[in-house]
Amino acid sequence: MVAIDLNSDLGESYGRYHLGKDQQVIPLISACNIACGFHAGDPDVMAHTVSLAEQAGIGVGAHPAFPDLDGFGRRYMQMDLASVTDMIVYQVAALEGFTHDHRLHHVKPHGALYNAAGKDLDLAKAICRGIKMVDPNIIVYGLANSQLIKAAEFYHLPAAEEVFADRNYQADGSLVPRTQPNAVLTDPEEIANRTVQMIQNQSVTAITGETVPLKIDSICVHGDNDQALAIVKALVKRLHQEKIDIETLKKK
Amino acid sequence: MVAIDLNSDLGESYGRYHLGKDQQVIPLISACNIACGFHAGDPDVMAHTVSLAEQAGIGVGAHPAFPDLDGFGRRYMQMDLASVTDMIVYQVAALEGFTHDHRLHHVKPHGALYNAAGKDLDLAKAICRGIKMVDPNIIVYGLANSQLIKAAEFYHLPAAEEVFADRNYQADGSLVPRTQPNAVLTDPEEIANRTVQMIQNQSVTAITGETVPLKIDSICVHGDNDQALAIVKALVKRLHQEKIDIETLKKK
Amino acid sequence: MVAIDLNSDLGESYGRYHLGKDQQVIPLISACNIACGFHAGDPDVMAHTVSLAEQAGIGVGAHPAFPDLDGFGRRYMQMDLASVTDMIVYQVAALEGFTHDHRLHHVKPHGALYNAAGKDLDLAKAICRGIKMVDPNIIVYGLANSQLIKAAEFYHLPAAEEVFADRNYQADGSLVPRTQPNAVLTDPEEIANRTVQMIQNQSVTAITGETVPLKIDSICVHGDNDQALAIVKALVKRLHQEKIDIETLKKK
Amino acid sequence: MVAIDLNSDLGESYGRYHLGKDQQVIPLISACNIACGFHAGDPDVMAHTVSLAEQAGIGVGAHPAFPDLDGFGRRYMQMDLASVTDMIVYQVAALEGFTHDHRLHHVKPHGALYNAAGKDLDLAKAICRGIKMVDPNIIVYGLANSQLIKAAEFYHLPAAEEVFADRNYQADGSLVPRTQPNAVLTDPEEIANRTVQMIQNQSVTAITGETVPLKIDSICVHGDNDQALAIVKALVKRLHQEKIDIETLKKK
Repeated sequence: MVAIDLNSDLGESYGRYHLGKDQQVIPLISACNIACGFHAGDPDVMAHTVSLAEQAGIGVGAHPAFPDLDGFGRRYMQMDLASVTDMIVYQVAALEGFTHDHRLHHVKPHGALYNAAGKDLDLAKAICRGIKMVDPNIIVYGLANSQLIKAAEFYHLPAAEEVFADRNYQADGSLVPRTQPNAVLTDPEEIANRTVQMIQNQSVTAITGETVPLKIDSICVHGDNDQALAIVKALVKRLHQEKIDIETLKKK
Repeated sequence: MVAIDLNSDLGESYGRYHLGKDQQVIPLISACNIACGFHAGDPDVMAHTVSLAEQAGIGVGAHPAFPDLDGFGRRYMQMDLASVTDMIVYQVAALEGFTHDHRLHHVKPHGALYNAAGKDLDLAKAICRGIKMVDPNIIVYGLANSQLIKAAEFYHLPAAEEVFADRNYQADGSLVPRTQPNAVLTDPEEIANRTVQMIQNQSVTAITGETVPLKIDSICVHGDNDQALAIVKALVKRLHQEKIDIETLKKK
Repeated sequence: MVAIDLNSDLGESYGRYHLGKDQQVIPLISACNIACGFHAGDPDVMAHTVSLAEQAGIGVGAHPAFPDLDGFGRRYMQMDLASVTDMIVYQVAALEGFTHDHRLHHVKPHGALYNAAGKDLDLAKAICRGIKMVDPNIIVYGLANSQLIKAAEFYHLPAAEEVFADRNYQADGSLVPRTQPNAVLTDPEEIANRTVQMIQNQSVTAITGETVPLKIDSICVHGDNDQALAIVKALVKRLHQEKIDIETLKKK
Repeated sequence: MVAIDLNSDLGESYGRYHLGKDQQVIPLISACNIACGFHAGDPDVMAHTVSLAEQAGIGVGAHPAFPDLDGFGRRYMQMDLASVTDMIVYQVAALEGFTHDHRLHHVKPHGALYNAAGKDLDLAKAICRGIKMVDPNIIVYGLANSQLIKAAEFYHLPAAEEVFADRNYQADGSLVPRTQPNAVLTDPEEIANRTVQMIQNQSVTAITGETVPLKIDSICVHGDNDQALAIVKALVKRLHQEKIDIETLKKK
């Protein structure tokens, strides 16, 4: 019996600003990454989103980011490593405060911090030090085979390697940058088929044709708009047909 | 054997901005209230200040405030009560993340939030609900005999009633507002004498002459500048002479 | 020949967050109030919105607010009057920088600042001092017959008295607070009829039946959602039928 | 008769936080760069600092920065070029609003933005486009011989090439990075002598011995602390001895 975790970013509203179809995507996924107020989210949104996720019984994770609300955490900032560690502690602990038992399932860095941590081992270690200070049993979500996974292993933190259902890959296992025309897939059926193959083969086919072996613990899906939701629904349907369960990753 | 707790605000630096003589005041006090990033403090300052306070063995408390860095949390903001609760959870939990055992000794609201919570029971309850969500054993520090103390008692949170060593009181037990000329005392010896009397008599003499009975668990002192430090030193010396121990309040 | 000005709040998006149907409402109105980054708007949004409004030839105004992005400027903050003046200069001048000739048509305070300035003459004067420092020819938009209008007159600033098409009024000319059930009108035809009467009679009928005489220079309409747009369209249609032109107020 | 401009960063206080000895350094310099609220400064500080500088008759310039108060604008942020232009307009125009005639003498980018603009022509052009939108007669201050000077020339903006009195240079005319031990000079007499030579020779001697020809319009000095002030005083004294006048650069 095969099972896979589906994770999605939630809680990205802020004050009067509403973003994301959280209530519709929650029933389809097994884990969520909740914004912590630095790139999105505010205390009210965090409280509400944690409550929704706990009621649904999915894994509640923190989604810490660079302190850049205007840039939605998508702009790289050159921070001291010690400051990175401290801002991770701050954001992860703040979100933890809203959970009923003050325990988080996982942490997944957001946006530019996620991308940079995939390539920069020192930055990835600074992030993992912060996570470990809050709770050494938190699962670190990172791009499969990236430096963030290596950093988690270095600190003996449980790690979950994830792939993106709707993104093309390069021969080295990295994502095709969004600046390139073929970075993103949009056809729900194609995405569903491809994701099933990734799970079953534990590999991805690069745009240049190579088979890239990857350990795949989780699939990242999106719930920003109706089209994204349609993709998740098509994927969930295909997983059921293939008898692949959608299951929250077990914590030690 | 009489003992008293001395508490002071710490960790009010921010980024390149330095404020407060934290290292000099820490050896003199038994508890500190650390800014949580909303009126002062940033993750680096919080990490550093918690570390200093833990090394000194004093009670580590959170000092949550209105979200107003430019106004240093001293400007009243008309917030929804639910938002107050959520912002308290956020700030208190964030600070807790920096402590070695993820436990705080106490919480003391800052500035305009503290003043408003002393008079507005609904606001005070909203604050206490947030504290309780993080940890029902955290001690709530509030102005002696104020609505914040009543709110803590309502939620069965341990409460510490504090007086200000350097402030004059009105006949109803409230502070003489800072807008009045005689609001603040500045002579170290006078402050020391007066504070000892307050502790020994569990009362304060109002500027209009009345004796106002107060339960006094803690004395708030300041460490912003050299003059403030001189006052704390004079007070500590007097307390030793009077054989009044300076002791961190016990948590249940 | 009668003419009236229609104004609406624009440019309330922020970073990744989109708010308001600016492009649809612009062709229907003669003046806009553009957020300045304190309650909404960021430099990119401001640049874009000024450009849209200038292309449409409508009056470009600043919409300064309390510094409270999370609360969308709707939470009253107790600020020093000097700080109010300075934050008005900052916001108004910043928006002016995006206009092609560095001239604004008007300034209309936003949210809690607008409401407070309608009742508190000192606050209203502090706002007007800031506006005058930037440009003494800027028109001040304020609630008809409010303290903000009086403050503008005190500083010899041109003033425009506005009414709200979709709000009920009390006998003293103030708005029925949003906390009351009958604060807001929602039927497009009723709103259109009522607004035409207000313009033609230069008065409003209070919910308690009294006729309240008001000088009416401008009507405030909203473009937040499809329902709000439907109201503006019904109003514009009715104004055409009544041969009331929609015209930007002339600056001296 | 030789003359030189001395410029210094001012107005870097924020809310309750005080930074810089503005009042002592103002009488010694001929131009100042005033923080605009993004890395330091708030509307009250800006109003006060502009007022001080105007009373002293020195050139009033804007000191725009990345939006990073916690990092004091010293952390590089990867921003879209259009966003850079817009944030420059915002900050420069906001500061201009506080001047008596709504005219600025110059603009000098701050910190990480300054450094990056010295090397990245596209970024430097984005900054200059913003400055030009506010006022095409504003003088752009940049590192002598840097990309920022080239960008200013590209847009036909007047440019002032500056050197740092207390910094060592590399053979290519760039500053020795602060990460290297010999980046900064501290001896007032050495700094004064060296600066006079730079002005008289219009060149600087690199740490590796080479003579690097530079056009020198302005000298950047600091007023953060007593040591910095002592350096400025020593430099001013030496300039007087050498009959080099300290003069604000003329605007066209």
